[in-house]
Amino acid sequence: MSYTYKKSQELFKEAAEIIPAGIYGHYSPAPLIPTSAYPFYTKRAEGSKFWDVDDNEFIDYMCAYGPMVLGYNNQTIEKAVNEQRAQGDTMTGAPAVMVELARELVNTIPIADWAFFAKNGNDMTTYATMVARAKTGRRKIIRLKGGYHGTAPWTQSPDHHGILLEDAAQIIIGEWNNYEALEKFVHQNKGDVAGIISTPYHHPTFEDNEMPADGYWKKVENLCKNEGIVLIIDDVRAGFRLDMGGSSEYFGFKPDLIAFCKAIGNGHPISALVGTKEMMQAAADVFYTGSYWFSAVPMAAALATIREMKRINSVKIMYDQGTKLANGLVDLAKEHGYNMKFTGHPAMPYYRLTDDPSLMLHQEWCAECTKNGAYFTSHHNWFISAAHTDEDIEKTLQIADEAFKTIKTKYKK
Amino acid sequence: MSYTYKKSQELFKEAAEIIPAGIYGHYSPAPLIPTSAYPFYTKRAEGSKFWDVDDNEFIDYMCAYGPMVLGYNNQTIEKAVNEQRAQGDTMTGAPAVMVELARELVNTIPIADWAFFAKNGNDMTTYATMVARAKTGRRKIIRLKGGYHGTAPWTQSPDHHGILLEDAAQIIIGEWNNYEALEKFVHQNKGDVAGIISTPYHHPTFEDNEMPADGYWKKVENLCKNEGIVLIIDDVRAGFRLDMGGSSEYFGFKPDLIAFCKAIGNGHPISALVGTKEMMQAAADVFYTGSYWFSAVPMAAALATIREMKRINSVKIMYDQGTKLANGLVDLAKEHGYNMKFTGHPAMPYYRLTDDPSLMLHQEWCAECTKNGAYFTSHHNWFISAAHTDEDIEKTLQIADEAFKTIKTKYKK
Repeated sequence: MSYTYKKSQELFKEAAEIIPAGIYGHYSPAPLIPTSAYPFYTKRAEGSKFWDVDDNEFIDYMCAYGPMVLGYNNQTIEKAVNEQRAQGDTMTGAPAVMVELARELVNTIPIADWAFFAKNGNDMTTYATMVARAKTGRRKIIRLKGGYHGTAPWTQSPDHHGILLEDAAQIIIGEWNNYEALEKFVHQNKGDVAGIISTPYHHPTFEDNEMPADGYWKKVENLCKNEGIVLIIDDVRAGFRLDMGGSSEYFGFKPDLIAFCKAIGNGHPISALVGTKEMMQAAADVFYTGSYWFSAVPMAAALATIREMKRINSVKIMYDQGTKLANGLVDLAKEHGYNMKFTGHPAMPYYRLTDDPSLMLHQEWCAECTKNGAYFTSHHNWFISAAHTDEDIEKTLQIADEAFKTIKTKYKK
Repeated sequence: MSYTYKKSQELFKEAAEIIPAGIYGHYSPAPLIPTSAYPFYTKRAEGSKFWDVDDNEFIDYMCAYGPMVLGYNNQTIEKAVNEQRAQGDTMTGAPAVMVELARELVNTIPIADWAFFAKNGNDMTTYATMVARAKTGRRKIIRLKGGYHGTAPWTQSPDHHGILLEDAAQIIIGEWNNYEALEKFVHQNKGDVAGIISTPYHHPTFEDNEMPADGYWKKVENLCKNEGIVLIIDDVRAGFRLDMGGSSEYFGFKPDLIAFCKAIGNGHPISALVGTKEMMQAAADVFYTGSYWFSAVPMAAALATIREMKRINSVKIMYDQGTKLANGLVDLAKEHGYNMKFTGHPAMPYYRLTDDPSLMLHQEWCAECTKNGAYFTSHHNWFISAAHTDEDIEKTLQIADEAFKTIKTKYKK
């Protein structure tokens, strides 16, 4: 008895007439293959679960694509939100909680001497490139192929719609885990590389995720130090899931700037850039702002989220629950005669059934799981939260077990 | 007995150690001259008023730099927010309210056949340029000197910190109300101008605001039509304060795209781009998204805000209250032997005492009013809300009257 999505599909048909692409961006149904297996509209969410507009229940392994880290409608966070809301949110003048939140980040993240707040991850990755240029007086930014830093023109390829060659005029595209190529680019552009921006480990879509090779980050850190290049870590997706001090602590290196978003406010809209003392004047020199960047409620939410993550040690919970899921899925696949490859980190796993390189088998298996209540995408890393219980994992493995049986019948090996 | 700001100043000192510039961007104290006259941190807000961390009370004429339009903590909006919050905010999957909000905008704004949502005004002005380029396959965007479209690199001058010459490589800078210059740029770059972006009237900082000259917009509209150029109106600041159908309705012309933010959600973080049918496919082709762009609560807030603005006719209320204030201030200045110049629109007035071209006298007068409870900036247009009562205006005029007396004593003419 798998789910159907009548209301989702009706609503999408209506949306397609008055919203570009119906649903755009990373929430677009297009990469959810087969689309008929997925709900498009969500009605409500609580803890580790959400319910779509057809009232189907899902254990959620996307966590709103990252922001949900302590469970939907977490009452510790929502209490802090209510207290701040009773005072005010978007007001004339900065709120006092902004200073308290900056202090909390400085105390939590070893490399951070200061913090700056905005609304989206891309606000902060773009700002980081501006700070690097202001600091160095240089032009070029090296980013790595397959690394996602948002959708501002400089982050996209010039063959995308609406993007110009000029948007990438001062962008050099490197390769993950290829230190030699990076070094070559730096030497070829000696004295003109302002910054290197990268995720702490490689988590592209539609591809196995990759951890840094031994010694990779230390070499990159030293290269940056020797050449006066600003090392920017885009921790938008992985931040607070691997290590409370930033994912660079997990991998043992020291960047100059780190961009956070996603998990920082448990779904309340806020992002942050933190940096070292040496970067602070350049950060102050750049003019950068937005209509809601001083809103108090998301700052209060972030303060409560960071404190609660530390209190319960959510990093360990997510690692443990993610590891149970990973072991369970790999074992189940083996029992059914398949090979499930797990890459990335247990709190942000990327899975792929390697038995069919076309990804079709993997897509069908993810779709089967989703239609039965375990929401799995096939193209993007998943997210584990601290609200995922043992019961959730157990139920998920049962759903996965059934899904293996179904695909075995449907797609004879 | 004017206000003092001990706690604001202490907190700012602390902030300056852990936040770039202490307070950055448009909330920075730097343009508030003399800074000693202004509070830096706000504790709470209700209706048309806010209270700073020293518990000083202000009638608020900045309205959080625009977002507050129906009064802080407006219970009609907050009720809708509570109802959506009980269901969910940032979730996996789009919320149904997104479609309802798009429908409301399409029904409210004559040129709108579709709507797209994000978080900041700059998200939408940048997206609009990408849509214009995707639609036309051309490169150049004309923007006007003194027009503010956000802080993304393309909106800034290459002499600003962290900005490259390349960021403006395909940007042409025109001049407000100078149709001939605009036409010349278009002809000089024939077939390569993708879009023209402009505010509906000219509201720079530190300068008198300027309405469009007779026939200006119709000529621009025709030029765009004849040359296949996308006409983009940045209604981030003026939107829903001049006309519920977009400020282009107020001035009687039809753009292709309009960007909204500020007043759209009464302080809840959301922005929107709306456009004509002809632009819809290009808008769908561009890849553009953000972590919180599908959050349901700000969408519910915007839906309630738009409906409430229409129900109470907030445009008329703001026009009427703004006109009372303008008449009062101009008359008071005359009584005291000064000339107060009012420019812009009553709901978004820009004032300047013309008796001292250095602006110092005007700055002192604004500072005197602020220190006595009427929050006036001297460099930026003010904002009126539908929550500003007759009593507020009356009290404000009393404060202004006293301020004229004070500056007359302090600065002998």
